[in-house]
Amino acid sequence: MNLDLLENILQQVRAGKLPVDKALQELSTWGYLDLGFAKLDLDRQRRVGFPEVVYGKGKTVDQIIEIVKSLYQHHSMAVVTKVNEDIASSLTSCQLPVKYYHQAKIILVGEPRPVKSPPAVAVITGGTADIPVAEEAAVICEIYGNEVVRIYDAGVAGIHRLINNLEKINQAGIIIVVAGMEGALGSIVGGLTPRPVIAVPTSVGYGANFHGLAALLTMLNSCAPGVAVVNIDNGFGAGVFAAMVNQGLVK
Amino acid sequence: MNLDLLENILQQVRAGKLPVDKALQELSTWGYLDLGFAKLDLDRQRRVGFPEVVYGKGKTVDQIIEIVKSLYQHHSMAVVTKVNEDIASSLTSCQLPVKYYHQAKIILVGEPRPVKSPPAVAVITGGTADIPVAEEAAVICEIYGNEVVRIYDAGVAGIHRLINNLEKINQAGIIIVVAGMEGALGSIVGGLTPRPVIAVPTSVGYGANFHGLAALLTMLNSCAPGVAVVNIDNGFGAGVFAAMVNQGLVK
Amino acid sequence: MNLDLLENILQQVRAGKLPVDKALQELSTWGYLDLGFAKLDLDRQRRVGFPEVVYGKGKTVDQIIEIVKSLYQHHSMAVVTKVNEDIASSLTSCQLPVKYYHQAKIILVGEPRPVKSPPAVAVITGGTADIPVAEEAAVICEIYGNEVVRIYDAGVAGIHRLINNLEKINQAGIIIVVAGMEGALGSIVGGLTPRPVIAVPTSVGYGANFHGLAALLTMLNSCAPGVAVVNIDNGFGAGVFAAMVNQGLVK
Amino acid sequence: MNLDLLENILQQVRAGKLPVDKALQELSTWGYLDLGFAKLDLDRQRRVGFPEVVYGKGKTVDQIIEIVKSLYQHHSMAVVTKVNEDIASSLTSCQLPVKYYHQAKIILVGEPRPVKSPPAVAVITGGTADIPVAEEAAVICEIYGNEVVRIYDAGVAGIHRLINNLEKINQAGIIIVVAGMEGALGSIVGGLTPRPVIAVPTSVGYGANFHGLAALLTMLNSCAPGVAVVNIDNGFGAGVFAAMVNQGLVK
Amino acid sequence: MNLDLLENILQQVRAGKLPVDKALQELSTWGYLDLGFAKLDLDRQRRVGFPEVVYGKGKTVDQIIEIVKSLYQHHSMAVVTKVNEDIASSLTSCQLPVKYYHQAKIILVGEPRPVKSPPAVAVITGGTADIPVAEEAAVICEIYGNEVVRIYDAGVAGIHRLINNLEKINQAGIIIVVAGMEGALGSIVGGLTPRPVIAVPTSVGYGANFHGLAALLTMLNSCAPGVAVVNIDNGFGAGVFAAMVNQGLVK
Amino acid sequence: MNLDLLENILQQVRAGKLPVDKALQELSTWGYLDLGFAKLDLDRQRRVGFPEVVYGKGKTVDQIIEIVKSLYQHHSMAVVTKVNEDIASSLTSCQLPVKYYHQAKIILVGEPRPVKSPPAVAVITGGTADIPVAEEAAVICEIYGNEVVRIYDAGVAGIHRLINNLEKINQAGIIIVVAGMEGALGSIVGGLTPRPVIAVPTSVGYGANFHGLAALLTMLNSCAPGVAVVNIDNGFGAGVFAAMVNQGLVK
Amino acid sequence: MNLDLLENILQQVRAGKLPVDKALQELSTWGYLDLGFAKLDLDRQRRVGFPEVVYGKGKTVDQIIEIVKSLYQHHSMAVVTKVNEDIASSLTSCQLPVKYYHQAKIILVGEPRPVKSPPAVAVITGGTADIPVAEEAAVICEIYGNEVVRIYDAGVAGIHRLINNLEKINQAGIIIVVAGMEGALGSIVGGLTPRPVIAVPTSVGYGANFHGLAALLTMLNSCAPGVAVVNIDNGFGAGVFAAMVNQGLVK
Amino acid sequence: MNLDLLENILQQVRAGKLPVDKALQELSTWGYLDLGFAKLDLDRQRRVGFPEVVYGKGKTVDQIIEIVKSLYQHHSMAVVTKVNEDIASSLTSCQLPVKYYHQAKIILVGEPRPVKSPPAVAVITGGTADIPVAEEAAVICEIYGNEVVRIYDAGVAGIHRLINNLEKINQAGIIIVVAGMEGALGSIVGGLTPRPVIAVPTSVGYGANFHGLAALLTMLNSCAPGVAVVNIDNGFGAGVFAAMVNQGLVK
Repeated sequence: MNLDLLENILQQVRAGKLPVDKALQELSTWGYLDLGFAKLDLDRQRRVGFPEVVYGKGKTVDQIIEIVKSLYQHHSMAVVTKVNEDIASSLTSCQLPVKYYHQAKIILVGEPRPVKSPPAVAVITGGTADIPVAEEAAVICEIYGNEVVRIYDAGVAGIHRLINNLEKINQAGIIIVVAGMEGALGSIVGGLTPRPVIAVPTSVGYGANFHGLAALLTMLNSCAPGVAVVNIDNGFGAGVFAAMVNQGLVK
Repeated sequence: MNLDLLENILQQVRAGKLPVDKALQELSTWGYLDLGFAKLDLDRQRRVGFPEVVYGKGKTVDQIIEIVKSLYQHHSMAVVTKVNEDIASSLTSCQLPVKYYHQAKIILVGEPRPVKSPPAVAVITGGTADIPVAEEAAVICEIYGNEVVRIYDAGVAGIHRLINNLEKINQAGIIIVVAGMEGALGSIVGGLTPRPVIAVPTSVGYGANFHGLAALLTMLNSCAPGVAVVNIDNGFGAGVFAAMVNQGLVK
Repeated sequence: MNLDLLENILQQVRAGKLPVDKALQELSTWGYLDLGFAKLDLDRQRRVGFPEVVYGKGKTVDQIIEIVKSLYQHHSMAVVTKVNEDIASSLTSCQLPVKYYHQAKIILVGEPRPVKSPPAVAVITGGTADIPVAEEAAVICEIYGNEVVRIYDAGVAGIHRLINNLEKINQAGIIIVVAGMEGALGSIVGGLTPRPVIAVPTSVGYGANFHGLAALLTMLNSCAPGVAVVNIDNGFGAGVFAAMVNQGLVK
Repeated sequence: MNLDLLENILQQVRAGKLPVDKALQELSTWGYLDLGFAKLDLDRQRRVGFPEVVYGKGKTVDQIIEIVKSLYQHHSMAVVTKVNEDIASSLTSCQLPVKYYHQAKIILVGEPRPVKSPPAVAVITGGTADIPVAEEAAVICEIYGNEVVRIYDAGVAGIHRLINNLEKINQAGIIIVVAGMEGALGSIVGGLTPRPVIAVPTSVGYGANFHGLAALLTMLNSCAPGVAVVNIDNGFGAGVFAAMVNQGLVK
Repeated sequence: MNLDLLENILQQVRAGKLPVDKALQELSTWGYLDLGFAKLDLDRQRRVGFPEVVYGKGKTVDQIIEIVKSLYQHHSMAVVTKVNEDIASSLTSCQLPVKYYHQAKIILVGEPRPVKSPPAVAVITGGTADIPVAEEAAVICEIYGNEVVRIYDAGVAGIHRLINNLEKINQAGIIIVVAGMEGALGSIVGGLTPRPVIAVPTSVGYGANFHGLAALLTMLNSCAPGVAVVNIDNGFGAGVFAAMVNQGLVK
Repeated sequence: MNLDLLENILQQVRAGKLPVDKALQELSTWGYLDLGFAKLDLDRQRRVGFPEVVYGKGKTVDQIIEIVKSLYQHHSMAVVTKVNEDIASSLTSCQLPVKYYHQAKIILVGEPRPVKSPPAVAVITGGTADIPVAEEAAVICEIYGNEVVRIYDAGVAGIHRLINNLEKINQAGIIIVVAGMEGALGSIVGGLTPRPVIAVPTSVGYGANFHGLAALLTMLNSCAPGVAVVNIDNGFGAGVFAAMVNQGLVK
Repeated sequence: MNLDLLENILQQVRAGKLPVDKALQELSTWGYLDLGFAKLDLDRQRRVGFPEVVYGKGKTVDQIIEIVKSLYQHHSMAVVTKVNEDIASSLTSCQLPVKYYHQAKIILVGEPRPVKSPPAVAVITGGTADIPVAEEAAVICEIYGNEVVRIYDAGVAGIHRLINNLEKINQAGIIIVVAGMEGALGSIVGGLTPRPVIAVPTSVGYGANFHGLAALLTMLNSCAPGVAVVNIDNGFGAGVFAAMVNQGLVK
Repeated sequence: MNLDLLENILQQVRAGKLPVDKALQELSTWGYLDLGFAKLDLDRQRRVGFPEVVYGKGKTVDQIIEIVKSLYQHHSMAVVTKVNEDIASSLTSCQLPVKYYHQAKIILVGEPRPVKSPPAVAVITGGTADIPVAEEAAVICEIYGNEVVRIYDAGVAGIHRLINNLEKINQAGIIIVVAGMEGALGSIVGGLTPRPVIAVPTSVGYGANFHGLAALLTMLNSCAPGVAVVNIDNGFGAGVFAAMVNQGLVK
């Protein structure tokens, strides 16, 4: 998988510096740290440009603490998503440099990457209730060194709120659109800008919204091209994708 | 159900003009014509303002001919929806005054009601492929005496096509929005006009469109109020509703 | 979007009263108030005939207070839907003239519009458990100046309860039918009256009701035309639509 | 499973008339005829009151012929459902006494059971397009010796067509209601009669009908009790159930 | 709707004993009691053979008390389903003769109808967790004068538990099968008995059970005929249907 | 069903040692213990190789205690799944030899079967949050005498964690793959090993995961053959299947 | 991935027999044959025990011919599934030793593996229409050297057909159950045998069967453990899994 | 919407060169060409960087010809998707410079944009049957001036086919992954590369694939971030998005 590493090992074997059995063992145990309940993917930064991020749901506090400690030790940075503030307090008690983003429900241990020069990532929401998901995306972008322009509550019921911000939107490198209910904002923005649009459906709504399904289908069927979609409420995924496209994340 | 009729019968009974058993029989066989395979609802015009309309699917040619003859005899008008042109030819052979609307797939036997003065019904489509459903709605409105303004292919991928027609749209009494794919046009129009909007999702699209489900959910979850929805591809239902609201249908 | 406004600005530019850069700025910041977490659509009353209504779910108390204050200041009226009574208390503490409708879960700040002369809006429910959704619709109609006739618990298991009220129903300008379980009431009313019917499916029921899906599909497939549908439990949307059609809302 | 048979065998074993190994063999091969591609359930008439009925779909013509011959040989009667007329022709060529019911798409080989005295089974449809499914139910009832009263096209868009037939309906022993589109007829009949109602949703409709799902959910959620439901388009199942309840099928 | 009543009124009008306006009023207000939040269907017993039953969910305690008092006053019997014991206590405080069935979650005010002679209704469950739904069905049958035979936990994982009870099952007049998980018990019983089977899917299960959908589809697709289905967890509907078929309920 | 038993009874009848009526009674009450609310399937061990296991959900504490006592008395072993620790405490108070597995939520009364020699069952999870379901599977395997190799958190986001453990995986007799989110791990493992793979989708995830539906569909559509699937979160079913295939369970 | 291969290459590098760049190239192009439109997985036999099988749908005839030729050249065997007979004819024209299994729609080029000694794989169907899917499973088992016992049309509507074959079923090493409609046969067999059961839902049925969804959910929710499921109509997957478990496939 | 244009018009008005009514007319009819059945969005190239692309489905041949002529006249380029070759022939007869891409089902009138320097877009498929969708994406990328690297049939059943191409993949600017069946390839690639991944689910598969739903859900739930999704079979949308991100499309 890692040809540089492989070539290096082969070179050492060739040069007689590394016995074959040692080479085999190194190749087979390389790249992760096994905690029993988790195998930390220490090779991820090399492969995809940023360290493993911890999905906070379904893990015990003790598991999160142990994982974060190890990640921070290796990468001087650890990020946990979809967690409440009490986890942040527990980590602070462990003498870790913790920052908790309330709306985004994200923990950052360590420092964000330095912000690069423009373009920024534009994050737009349809309504006020979509802001927590938007913040998850925005904070992830900022942690990975991107400037973020926030344009919140610009939904299609009053479309001049969007159009009047179009110049600002078009200066971004990539656009994240976060919307619940019928999620039409994705198509509208897609039809107005030359920038790629990451659409994030949210579970805001009720009834035949079916917990975000309505907005998800709307966004997948966008009549305007240039729109790609992530999971319902997946601000994190949108943020990572935008950071990859925009700048700052890779390298 | 029909208090005038009931009072009339009671008065005749009271006056001794109508024996009780005759009164009972009249009340129990009143209001429809039984063809065996169909019970024509001859009372519908009195109740809801227009005669029974024939749903063409799932009926044999012979059944449609017999039904249309009876309806035309009673009401001097018969309408059949969702039929192909060969049915129209068969009816013409029966010496009936038939008009076939190709795009709308509607047969009219007899004359449309005279067109009333404004306002008109505005019929807007998202794309070209939505036109057959839009025509079903538009023709129904015209048959019941409404002027129709058609604004086709004004979808949200190029929203200036809609906005530039807004003045014309706002002069209508009610608006029918016909759109497939993500169906966002319903919300957009709802946010731009004080007229009520009947949204018709169409089955135009593919994949996660699920034969119109995406547009249906979009329209039901419209963040702009003033939007009500009919079944997927149901131009007929939208046309009747609009005619009821606008004018011409009732009385 | 607003040709009168645009013409006015162009006239001023023409007359040399307004510099070009001022004209550009006015056009780009016009029509909403930006609170950061919300962009209040102050132009909505002009466009659609009534001010923005606040969807209460997913907003913090502080956000609702700030939004309501601004809306009330601009329009002398503010409406919040789907909120509990404690929000109303918080608003009262802010010296606002608050009225809370318990069953409807609606806050009105300011006065309802004066009631116009007939026709009324008829609001019919299938059962007792559908009343909260019906009240949301009825109160919205009343706030916008419509008289409301309530006919509750007239479901199809005992259809004489409906038929005996038919004269009253037929005198309305438009009918709102609110029903859960199988939602058949929409079709029944549609087949008995010349008035347009807005059908509101509710989430009342269990099992294969699927939280209102059964009633929603029933109403969308009504064999009687003249029936249009809004989202499950969306009394608000039905009320706005009915008010638009009936009278009082526009202008 | 069959205690009479078992007791008889035990008695013979006891009496020394039947060796144990013969008894074992008889018990293990008893009750069906193995054709390789089918195991004809010759014991079904004893268990449930009528012989195995052949589901015509997904079987080759040769398979149907071989099965029908064997069933007719054992029971002097064979019934095949959901088949086209050419299968009937093939069976006629085999010198079997075949009757084909066109609308019902049913083959009967042999004679129907003699009709018993009242009550009859009432079969009601919402529309004309539901008749083929209704006929499947009606013919099955007649084959098993029940009189059938047909009331077709009495749907809820014109409910007087139903109410005026109520006396006839109430004289039936059990009622089969066949309806597509929104399927509201099931609830309506359920609320008007003391007879049990078997509701059969049909796939008549389009769009959000989802091939009969709308009518199915409507019928399952009937607010009137006394309504039970069979599969979409399953006239056969409704007919068997009705015949079991009414008379004639058992014994 | 009620020809006897109608004839009686016509006769009185004929005889000059009843003025026409009084006759009209009687016909239009006849048959229910209007409590504002509920219209009690006092005519139901005449139409369908038993009084209106109160669905307890979604009603306030005060509403239930008022309804029950009125029903008890007219029919000397009132039944409430899907309620907790505290409602029963409230009714007892009102001096009503209340009996609460814990497992069935049913309140009976007044006395059950006297038990008739055989046959009984057999109620079978797949497992222990299905018993509450089964009891809802069983208690309803008993209230309407039917003997009930309970065979609980006889699911298909150990089918000898069912087969060994077959003689008892076959002596019933009708069979109610209550099962969750895969719900296969409906088909199995249907293939073993000449009695009609009412299948009740329950929401017992998890994962791809989808809250009873799995069992519902299983029962609707039963390869054994003679099986009809009611809503998920709808023991009440199954009980009423069975009582109608078996005996005791009608008349 | 049980030919040995049947032959034995027939032999006794033949020999005159067992009267016919006794034989009939024995055959009809044989094989289960009737507790009223439950019929314990005491014959299951003979038929399928292990005693009935108690599904803990939906049963009262008293019901579980009574069932466990009876099972333990007959089989010297009882297993309860999906229960909390307080049930275990209640059983301990009854002097039963109870062991509670916290992560697996399983109670074992009595001793596990002795561990057999290799091969082991390999249990792999995609993430840390999948461990409780994996433990349910693993503990069931161990109770029935299988060695288990646990490889947790080896999901496809860092596939080297899986590949580096491949040798260990290939030495197993059968592999259980437990994964939520997109559930891709099932296909990946299926393409890398000659061992059969039991895939268990979990409900870990959110949004368009639909409580495990996404992983379930993924696993059912595996492009690698050799993968079979059990219900969402059904670690128990996977464990039993694996034990059946691997060894130790049968006989 | 292949430690033996890797060790061998390392040894050669170590010994100076293989230059580093040659080693790198060998590692990176190893294991498949690239045809442009397909990358034949020539390593699959080593990894999973049998060569790549060609999924016939969605491939052109020319693509299938080219793939089959290459596979046959490398493995002396090629298998194509879900193809019509004309593909077989085309392959025969290419001088390949082709055998076409009509019911199974499988092409085998070359010879089946020799049949091993017992146990056999038992393949059971619910009905006659399920046989094509069953044959796909059975033929795959036979091609990989397993004896197959076919028990067709033993569905739960006449369960004695199954029970009378139980001895034969229990002698198999693993059981494949193929059933459509409600698919209850999976649970029934699971409750009667100590052998693992692979359940294959089929798309046989109509209406609320939803093209096999009903049977799929039934099988996933089996109350009897020891049942695992493959995709609807996936006889191939069931056959491979059974062959893996039973014998003959591996090695 | 277009501030430059607006400023220019304002400047002309200011300078007295453009009367106010002309300015108003220009603003209201600007930006599209109205063909009646279609409003060609001639402004799209300015807004989003490329001209309107014609969705071929649901349009008549005559409509497509008229649209293509107009687009080609304005932009010297026209693209039609999802069309058969006979449409291409019709366009050729109109003397237009037509190129038809068979696998992609795309018509290009005019010349592709010149190819820019690296990076390329990588297009990967899971199988051979996914190639038509992949070609739709690839051809769109090429038309807009991007180099494309095709890696077809590298699905997860033989993952070395992917890993051995990883170096080539990582040199791309963005990656399009096209996969049907379980669609796991999206997650796998996402976990192996620092480039953003556009995942395209295809409808390749059967049974519980539900026409691409399985792959769609898989891709939306990817445990590896950096993956965004477009509609099922939407190669066009993926191509546009990739071209926007990569280069060549904008400006």
